[in-house]
Amino acid sequence: MTITRAECVALDASDPLKHLRDEFSLPDGTIYLVGNSLGAPPKAAVAAVTRTVEEEWGGRLVGGWNASGWYDLPLTTGDRIAPLIGVGPGQVAVGESTSIAIVKAVTAALSLRPGRRVIVSDRANFPTDHYMVQGLVKALDGYEIRDIAGLGDLAGVLADDVACVLMSEVDYRTGARHDTAEVTAAVQAAGALMIWDLCHSAGAFQVDMSVADFAIGCTYKYLNAGPGSPAYIYVHPRHQAGAEHMLTGWHGHAEPFAFEPGFRPAEGIRRFTVSTPHVLSYAPLNASLDIWERVDLAELRAKSVALTSLFIELVEEFCAPYDLALLSPRDPERRGSQVSFRHPDGYPVMRALIDRGVHGDFRAPDVLRFGFAPLYIRHVDVYDAAVALAEVLREEHWRDERYRRRLAVT
Amino acid sequence: MTITRAECVALDASDPLKHLRDEFSLPDGTIYLVGNSLGAPPKAAVAAVTRTVEEEWGGRLVGGWNASGWYDLPLTTGDRIAPLIGVGPGQVAVGESTSIAIVKAVTAALSLRPGRRVIVSDRANFPTDHYMVQGLVKALDGYEIRDIAGLGDLAGVLADDVACVLMSEVDYRTGARHDTAEVTAAVQAAGALMIWDLCHSAGAFQVDMSVADFAIGCTYKYLNAGPGSPAYIYVHPRHQAGAEHMLTGWHGHAEPFAFEPGFRPAEGIRRFTVSTPHVLSYAPLNASLDIWERVDLAELRAKSVALTSLFIELVEEFCAPYDLALLSPRDPERRGSQVSFRHPDGYPVMRALIDRGVHGDFRAPDVLRFGFAPLYIRHVDVYDAAVALAEVLREEHWRDERYRRRLAVT
Repeated sequence: MTITRAECVALDASDPLKHLRDEFSLPDGTIYLVGNSLGAPPKAAVAAVTRTVEEEWGGRLVGGWNASGWYDLPLTTGDRIAPLIGVGPGQVAVGESTSIAIVKAVTAALSLRPGRRVIVSDRANFPTDHYMVQGLVKALDGYEIRDIAGLGDLAGVLADDVACVLMSEVDYRTGARHDTAEVTAAVQAAGALMIWDLCHSAGAFQVDMSVADFAIGCTYKYLNAGPGSPAYIYVHPRHQAGAEHMLTGWHGHAEPFAFEPGFRPAEGIRRFTVSTPHVLSYAPLNASLDIWERVDLAELRAKSVALTSLFIELVEEFCAPYDLALLSPRDPERRGSQVSFRHPDGYPVMRALIDRGVHGDFRAPDVLRFGFAPLYIRHVDVYDAAVALAEVLREEHWRDERYRRRLAVT
Repeated sequence: MTITRAECVALDASDPLKHLRDEFSLPDGTIYLVGNSLGAPPKAAVAAVTRTVEEEWGGRLVGGWNASGWYDLPLTTGDRIAPLIGVGPGQVAVGESTSIAIVKAVTAALSLRPGRRVIVSDRANFPTDHYMVQGLVKALDGYEIRDIAGLGDLAGVLADDVACVLMSEVDYRTGARHDTAEVTAAVQAAGALMIWDLCHSAGAFQVDMSVADFAIGCTYKYLNAGPGSPAYIYVHPRHQAGAEHMLTGWHGHAEPFAFEPGFRPAEGIRRFTVSTPHVLSYAPLNASLDIWERVDLAELRAKSVALTSLFIELVEEFCAPYDLALLSPRDPERRGSQVSFRHPDGYPVMRALIDRGVHGDFRAPDVLRFGFAPLYIRHVDVYDAAVALAEVLREEHWRDERYRRRLAVT
């Protein structure tokens, strides 16, 4: 056997991030490998939200806009996300959802490349990225989408009609990770603008967007800000004065309280805000960012590589006789903080595994996903998860009829 | 004197809605006449949010999407708003902000009137309504905005090139209220579609959207759901199958978890949802809707008329010597639940008044706004507010230099 459970316990004891697990609320008996879909709550989240409701909203009422800093929340919170994606202050605005942020980023990019009519979108992006671009292209006149099936196709489509390229740093299905510097350089060399989707990378490892044109991402996965917490957009400073996105709401106005008849964009990143921020949702996000401020991102990455590599090794050893095939890259350099396997009966296998306390998730048609949030996942969790998966496959628990019934959300 | 303070106390004692004030958290010593901007918190809001964070998110983690009904929140919550705007179940979807809802409503309307290229927008709308339409028209090709300055101009612009008309039922500055049935009929007779902004009407009185084509509104004013709580969109059933808005995110897809490459709209109102709902923000909204379920809207309206009429009467009596001019309609039938006065030094007057515990707000250039949320405002509050306003004007408290310094949010 490669490694024993006791050795995993020893590795956890010397983990430099081990004290951070205590900052999160995790139900007993659950091994939670879905932090890449919805992060676990920081324990401080309840107090943060309670304070926002009782002291800020209840205590100051509408005065909270000034006295509690609500008005600037999209920017002050954005500045706290910035280090996680390798950029500086004044470059990130929080708000709305990833889907809405895509509209901002793509239309801003189109405004900067007026002669170019093509948006390149990778089929490996999460579907909503495509859907939003499809809605946009249908509404706007004279634009077209050029789909690619992965990085290999990119060079072939980078003609001088391409305005922008939308790709994900980490593939949500496979966990494969792109070299963003290399891809960004190729896109920019062709005169196009690069938009990165960071949903599966920010908080999984140190991201570096310093040369990218735009980036968007959510905060409810590795950033642990809660279901439906607001998204963010990064805009490189060189584009902030010139880019005009189409969602020109009053919070992006140069003088929102002048109530002028015409829209006039604010200077800087503020023009990428749209409307009243979802104040309550910022409370757990800022509670989570309090934790992130204490995280050494090199240690985070080292632990993530250790956990994902160990999981691959153990599953391939324990589950060798069964129909599992590794979908994620074997090279840790090419991997995010997620490991995916394919199994022809992936859906019931995952449900049977969840019933035994090991939570991963399933993506059609046959992908079992396991996310390893290094802030709260331990080596021993990896070991126990691999053992449980092997048992589900060996004992064929997943053949139970009840695991085949589809839930609304899979 | 028209009425005494003691008589106001007696009116409150016989108010059929008086028990509802106890459901809200209001700071001592504050007369809160800004419920038309940000409603007061329901006392149940903290417990509701805590439950969502601890039990739903913390207890079920990603399982909350199924087990806690998160996935359907935009529709289940929409069904609870529906009675307040006079429509039925399956016609309202909650999500995002009013600004984003405007993009959905307008692009849906344009999809239903393909030959028509004009969007009529009333300058009396809140500015973000214009700004969003301006952003849209700039991005789309071949459309134009036709501004009107109030209802009087509408008949003159209703040519056969008008696709849709966007107006507010209640004017955010003056509190003036339109006859929605009459306006809707005129717009529809011209072959155009009517979109109502209900931000200042839903929760102020019984709204009736049953013949309108679309409506949008926020939930943080009279609906008391908290700063930046999600907005809603109403779509008449006759349009739900045909209308295609441009914000085609995965939650509006017919099969969001099939991860198909192309967008295919869901049936019914679900196609007007975009992406992951801001789950935490739904908790206070549903806590507020628990209160609204117990409200007789005829009693609500009667109290609103009584409060606003009394305020006009008392202010005009107590403040007769000063530079106040009534901006709101004198006829209660033509008024929402708000009273506005103009004063050349409106900004410092309002700040001095707030310093004395009476909270209204200011809108450029010279408007003092007072909102009367009938669920928690009493006759005695109206009396005391009028007395305080008279004192600020009589003693010229507002001339103090500190009241002239502008706050970030006014």
